[in-house]
Amino acid sequence: MEKPNLPFKQSEYDDRLLMVRTAMAMAGLDALLVTDPSNQAWLTGYDGWSFYVHQGVIVTQDADPIWWGRSQDTNGALRTVWMQDDCVIGYSDDHVQSDVKHPMEDLARHLDGLGLRNLGVEMDNYYFSAKAFSVLLQALPNIGFADATGMVNWQRTVKSEAELTYMRKAALISEKIVNGLLDRVEPGVPKNEIVAEIYRDAIRGVEGVWGDYPAIVPLLPSGANAAAPHLTWDGTPFVSGEATFFEISGCYRRYHAPLCRTLFLGTPPEDMKHAEAAVIEGLDAGIDAARAGNRACDVANALDACLQKAGIERAARCGYPIGLSYPPDWGERTISLRAEDETVLEPNMTFHLMPGLWTKDWGLEITESIRICETGPAETFSNMPRQLFAKP
Amino acid sequence: MEKPNLPFKQSEYDDRLLMVRTAMAMAGLDALLVTDPSNQAWLTGYDGWSFYVHQGVIVTQDADPIWWGRSQDTNGALRTVWMQDDCVIGYSDDHVQSDVKHPMEDLARHLDGLGLRNLGVEMDNYYFSAKAFSVLLQALPNIGFADATGMVNWQRTVKSEAELTYMRKAALISEKIVNGLLDRVEPGVPKNEIVAEIYRDAIRGVEGVWGDYPAIVPLLPSGANAAAPHLTWDGTPFVSGEATFFEISGCYRRYHAPLCRTLFLGTPPEDMKHAEAAVIEGLDAGIDAARAGNRACDVANALDACLQKAGIERAARCGYPIGLSYPPDWGERTISLRAEDETVLEPNMTFHLMPGLWTKDWGLEITESIRICETGPAETFSNMPRQLFAKP
Repeated sequence: MEKPNLPFKQSEYDDRLLMVRTAMAMAGLDALLVTDPSNQAWLTGYDGWSFYVHQGVIVTQDADPIWWGRSQDTNGALRTVWMQDDCVIGYSDDHVQSDVKHPMEDLARHLDGLGLRNLGVEMDNYYFSAKAFSVLLQALPNIGFADATGMVNWQRTVKSEAELTYMRKAALISEKIVNGLLDRVEPGVPKNEIVAEIYRDAIRGVEGVWGDYPAIVPLLPSGANAAAPHLTWDGTPFVSGEATFFEISGCYRRYHAPLCRTLFLGTPPEDMKHAEAAVIEGLDAGIDAARAGNRACDVANALDACLQKAGIERAARCGYPIGLSYPPDWGERTISLRAEDETVLEPNMTFHLMPGLWTKDWGLEITESIRICETGPAETFSNMPRQLFAKP
Repeated sequence: MEKPNLPFKQSEYDDRLLMVRTAMAMAGLDALLVTDPSNQAWLTGYDGWSFYVHQGVIVTQDADPIWWGRSQDTNGALRTVWMQDDCVIGYSDDHVQSDVKHPMEDLARHLDGLGLRNLGVEMDNYYFSAKAFSVLLQALPNIGFADATGMVNWQRTVKSEAELTYMRKAALISEKIVNGLLDRVEPGVPKNEIVAEIYRDAIRGVEGVWGDYPAIVPLLPSGANAAAPHLTWDGTPFVSGEATFFEISGCYRRYHAPLCRTLFLGTPPEDMKHAEAAVIEGLDAGIDAARAGNRACDVANALDACLQKAGIERAARCGYPIGLSYPPDWGERTISLRAEDETVLEPNMTFHLMPGLWTKDWGLEITESIRICETGPAETFSNMPRQLFAKP
């Protein structure tokens, strides 16, 4: 089947596969089962909302990857993966959500024929359940299993030019979303009405850039509820005298560039203005420290020092890598920008620098998606004033 | 903390807890770790987009459930669960996506103090990874583990009146979405523009009913690509001479009522008209067989007989239970409407009756969300003409 719509050139997929095979060889693996949908898409191009059933990509050293999944989803795989049609295999529908047949029994039959010794599996992935592992273990007693959580994710940390192009497009959508909500939010407007426009802006995209669905829905708690970072929305109206943070991301062909801003309806209290100043100074310091050769912890420490100087204690990490992603997370789950992480930064790594403050009385999010440059401080994907917005 | 916004009365949560405890007792479990976000919400009210990190609800026989999760998400739990504040516990942020500390080590310390003998875990859930289980196994050598996949989900199959009210509201949104897209889709309109309006309609909701995010994004492949059930969208325009199916659901307070319709731009070919007639007849027969006392397989067999009579072979199940759900699936993952499933239907069970046809040349989805009635055939949640729509 022809693949006119592959998001990347074949040479880029070849490079990715080589990187993964190298990592596999260094870990002594002759095969890797990739169950993370983001990793599957990055390696093969597979794209579809089918990750609610068991599926995966089998990578070996000497043959093209195999996409394996539910029989009805092979039609989506044939249309989206770069491999030849015989690299797409399916299991029959009576395996789906059955307590008699498990899909991994079908996968085990395929794997059994490959003469494998050591198989890597993504032990800590949403889409590799405890049951999936136990079925494989039982069905393949002669294969050694190794935890390969993050093995593919780590290869994704440094972005190609083509990936950066997609992220820049996503960032244009992020800016459009934030500008739109700053215009529209007023006291009395129900939250869901604003979210409806956020989604409309996000999916319409910008000139020449259609919008894909982001891996996380818009988050926008207000007032004291903004102490809770991950509340979604309801139909209650925005209220004067409260801050609302908006955690959103544009998405283009599964690539993200999150951008968070906070809007106060009325005049922000002194403690929020104080925090705003510290966060802005922290972001500046973090972006300045986010240089090739520095470490992840250097960014976190530079940012946290500004907050501490202002008397603000922050317990959470202040950022994570971003790029290609599927729900439920737009982070890549490798590096964390925190004091304990000594990963050395490389050019074209991309992060969401995210020093959200969630206090008892309010939440404040002013964030940037950034790219590590060859020299000098990081560049931001968006160009949006870095401030706590206020509207009378 | 006051909980003015709980979706259900305390008595309903009490009933649910009693049902789960009874199931636990019958399975010999003195505790259950609930990791499925839908099950967590159904039992405790917890609602937030935080399921991308490890979290769960611990149910025992003699104390209120404990919500356990990331420290920063305890603020969301305090605001959304019905239990007292001391039933909400958190782990520190350095456990998040770390390869040094695993969140389940923290949970194990809590569980270790409870004197448990047999702990049920949801082995085949997206949010209970192979790693999570292996950490618990190692940390708690004196506890017996049992697979409790679906134990809570099965208690959810029969809906309360309050749940049905939410689903009826979701169905109003579903109808609005379908009516809107039938109006708007024209040759030349880019797909993402239609999806933008679908989202806007879904989240704006209808009079007095704000829209929540559905657990699956809109699916709308066209022409031969509609052979693939789970493709999403891009920026290409709709084209004359092609059918597009629209798989969507309105959502109100996490409750769903999916509704799929298909639109042909132009005059549908004879084979699609033939299939349309068979599917409509099959839906009628399925709805008529969907009666309290009949079995899940009776619905599937009645529907499939109509398709087979028309020479159409369908390999997939033709429906699944629906209600409360979080991504990545709006199904409940218990009953399947297929020949092998002999579950007896009960009043107020709710299903998405979903005989999608995905052929080489086109896809056809005409579906209904249904409720099993006390007597007689099922009722549909929506009131939308059951047909293949066509537009010149």
